Amino acid sequence: YKTTGHGLNAFVTVSIDLARRSADRASERWRDGRQLSPIDGMPIGIKDVLDSYGDCTSLGLPPAVRRDPGFDSAAVWALRRAGAAVFGKTKTTEFAMTYPADTVNPHDRTRTPGGSSSGSAAAVGAGILPSTLGTQGIASVIRPGSFCGTYAYKPTFGGINRGGANDAMSQSVIGVLAASVEDTWATASAICSRAGGDAGHRPAVMASALAAPARPTRVAIVETPGWSSASEAAWTQLDGVGEVLSRNGVDVIDRTRDNRVDELERALADSLPNGRAITGYEASWMINAVADQYPLAVSSLSKQRGDAGLSLTYERYAALLEWRRGLRRVYAELMSDVDCLIALSAPGAAPIGLSSTGDASFGVISSVLGSPAISLPVFEDEGLPLGLQLVGAAGSDDELFGWARWIDDTHAGR
Amino acid sequence: YKTTGHGLNAFVTVSIDLARRSADRASERWRDGRQLSPIDGMPIGIKDVLDSYGDCTSLGLPPAVRRDPGFDSAAVWALRRAGAAVFGKTKTTEFAMTYPADTVNPHDRTRTPGGSSSGSAAAVGAGILPSTLGTQGIASVIRPGSFCGTYAYKPTFGGINRGGANDAMSQSVIGVLAASVEDTWATASAICSRAGGDAGHRPAVMASALAAPARPTRVAIVETPGWSSASEAAWTQLDGVGEVLSRNGVDVIDRTRDNRVDELERALADSLPNGRAITGYEASWMINAVADQYPLAVSSLSKQRGDAGLSLTYERYAALLEWRRGLRRVYAELMSDVDCLIALSAPGAAPIGLSSTGDASFGVISSVLGSPAISLPVFEDEGLPLGLQLVGAAGSDDELFGWARWIDDTHAGR
Repeated sequence: YKTTGHGLNAFVTVSIDLARRSADRASERWRDGRQLSPIDGMPIGIKDVLDSYGDCTSLGLPPAVRRDPGFDSAAVWALRRAGAAVFGKTKTTEFAMTYPADTVNPHDRTRTPGGSSSGSAAAVGAGILPSTLGTQGIASVIRPGSFCGTYAYKPTFGGINRGGANDAMSQSVIGVLAASVEDTWATASAICSRAGGDAGHRPAVMASALAAPARPTRVAIVETPGWSSASEAAWTQLDGVGEVLSRNGVDVIDRTRDNRVDELERALADSLPNGRAITGYEASWMINAVADQYPLAVSSLSKQRGDAGLSLTYERYAALLEWRRGLRRVYAELMSDVDCLIALSAPGAAPIGLSSTGDASFGVISSVLGSPAISLPVFEDEGLPLGLQLVGAAGSDDELFGWARWIDDTHAGR
Repeated sequence: YKTTGHGLNAFVTVSIDLARRSADRASERWRDGRQLSPIDGMPIGIKDVLDSYGDCTSLGLPPAVRRDPGFDSAAVWALRRAGAAVFGKTKTTEFAMTYPADTVNPHDRTRTPGGSSSGSAAAVGAGILPSTLGTQGIASVIRPGSFCGTYAYKPTFGGINRGGANDAMSQSVIGVLAASVEDTWATASAICSRAGGDAGHRPAVMASALAAPARPTRVAIVETPGWSSASEAAWTQLDGVGEVLSRNGVDVIDRTRDNRVDELERALADSLPNGRAITGYEASWMINAVADQYPLAVSSLSKQRGDAGLSLTYERYAALLEWRRGLRRVYAELMSDVDCLIALSAPGAAPIGLSSTGDASFGVISSVLGSPAISLPVFEDEGLPLGLQLVGAAGSDDELFGWARWIDDTHAGR
């Protein structure tokens, strides 16, 4: 099939015939007014860490590591119940961590699409699919969304059911990368309304419809960790958004105007190394379980992460969890009268080369905060896409969509 | 191989040759003083809901639902790293819920072994294996341990890593069924010291060695929900334990002596229906995902559970979680100066017949409490085994083993 032949290397497998049959059945339902959901018939790509009936789950590993799930993950099951045409499995970095896939950026094939949801972002960025699922434990939805020019949504921790997602890390989530804010929310809503959140958690989106565009009362511009690496074009555009919002009646604060923003920026400073240590500890069993059975199938980069995870003591890990709880208290304090943060999704355009998925320090913040984030594809750098990142308070996902729509419209001068 | 031929139907698959090779390598290590752990070479059975390299994971479903994990779950990986000889997959009820396997009770083949960890309990009760893994979301470790006459340990929620366990329910855990308290703790410790707990949680056992027998200061005799169905032999023996402990200097309280025990008993009253509603909501996606692909593979009993789970609103589910949080507050209040509860693991001997795994109302309490429990095979009813259940405060697993050993010894007059 031609899709894989675009040269993007976005897909591990495609199920074009199955997807077409699903779409044909959906067409009949729409014709008869019996559609199952707003996404009935929509072709959707699934990051290849989520179990999907009929395909092996690769986790970015070679086919020798045959993992045949037998049945769907919760999210894929919910999408099928909503009528979606599950289109194929999209490429991921190894273990959805650092070692890259061979996927290229659809806007410049010499550049990374970002990771770990590389194929999902590339497929949407290239216009092949309107919507895909990704997962994020560090920056794996927000960063590739930024690099490939898609809308990208990372929910509140626990907000989209990870049953069968082969991921139980303490800050990971399933997210959505899509071509519009409407498709993004509709995909998330189709899952949340059928499969809910993780066990014990509230579904991320619960409104009966996508929120109307809504002007936030107060937003905070935040300089994320690694800010000095942001390109001039990037921070100029972010400042420009601040000015546009101010002109339109939003109270825009930053660390020079509110000490709590300064305190949050300082609390966020170690987000990337600490977040990596937490997820490395939690993923070490899986990396080592695979490496013990298939030593040649695992990259040395992943093996190093697996060894580092095993060598971390529980006491150190517990201290990192305590650091994260403290950070979330600082954040909750600020968010008691701020609607959302505005920040960059990445320091600039996707970097050249496929050996790294780029800087994660901008995209990591919502992961360690456990809070929802949306990346809007409204900036440019080096003639390539760059995302504006909005981060809300935990549990405010539906409202965040409304603010995101208003900011998107206002920025575009609509 | 003869093990499956005992007629117990305890195993889905056995890997006798692999296990023997593992045991032979362990023998060499012990001979050279290079043993990997106290369980190096120990044959261990794995409940067939946990992924184990080389075997499909059945979840109690027919072979048509082919689920080939590709690599080990966290617990099985840790056991292999500790040198254990993974012996085979033990039979489980369907989805580790209500619909029974064909496993029989090794002490009376006309009776249920209990469930859902049916094969694990039967294999240990029959003397085939010294130790097995089970899982419990309701009573699935404590009840079969009681019916088959094994030691059974259900850890504090989150205390044994469920990566690859195909279970992310909010009160489920991996547990151990074994032939001695030493083997029980050693098996749990081998996992906890290598793979830790669930992401974000403390490992259940962290001591460097099994606690020495220790006299508890104060215990509370608790009449669990459904108490009126306990056999006379059962409650007579439980009362007898209370008297023996009193004579040996333990302060034994009950609801007639301490109002907080009465309050706990009343708070526990709806544990079984509420616990079933919580886990039914959380498991509904999996039951429906399988049933949508393989309608004939799923029992009507499981389908009913899946439908009931889907029809429960999030608001009702959230109210049940709030009920559980309230119950745990009542419990924590009592446990501030009580070391452990003593109770029955089941109302009596395993009931006759294989169409039901028996009454879960006694074994459910540690699941809804999120606390550790140990069933000691020290009682008899109808000439068959019956367990004495000890339940500790969340996080007190290591201490609970010490109290369990002292109570076990004292009850036996050692």
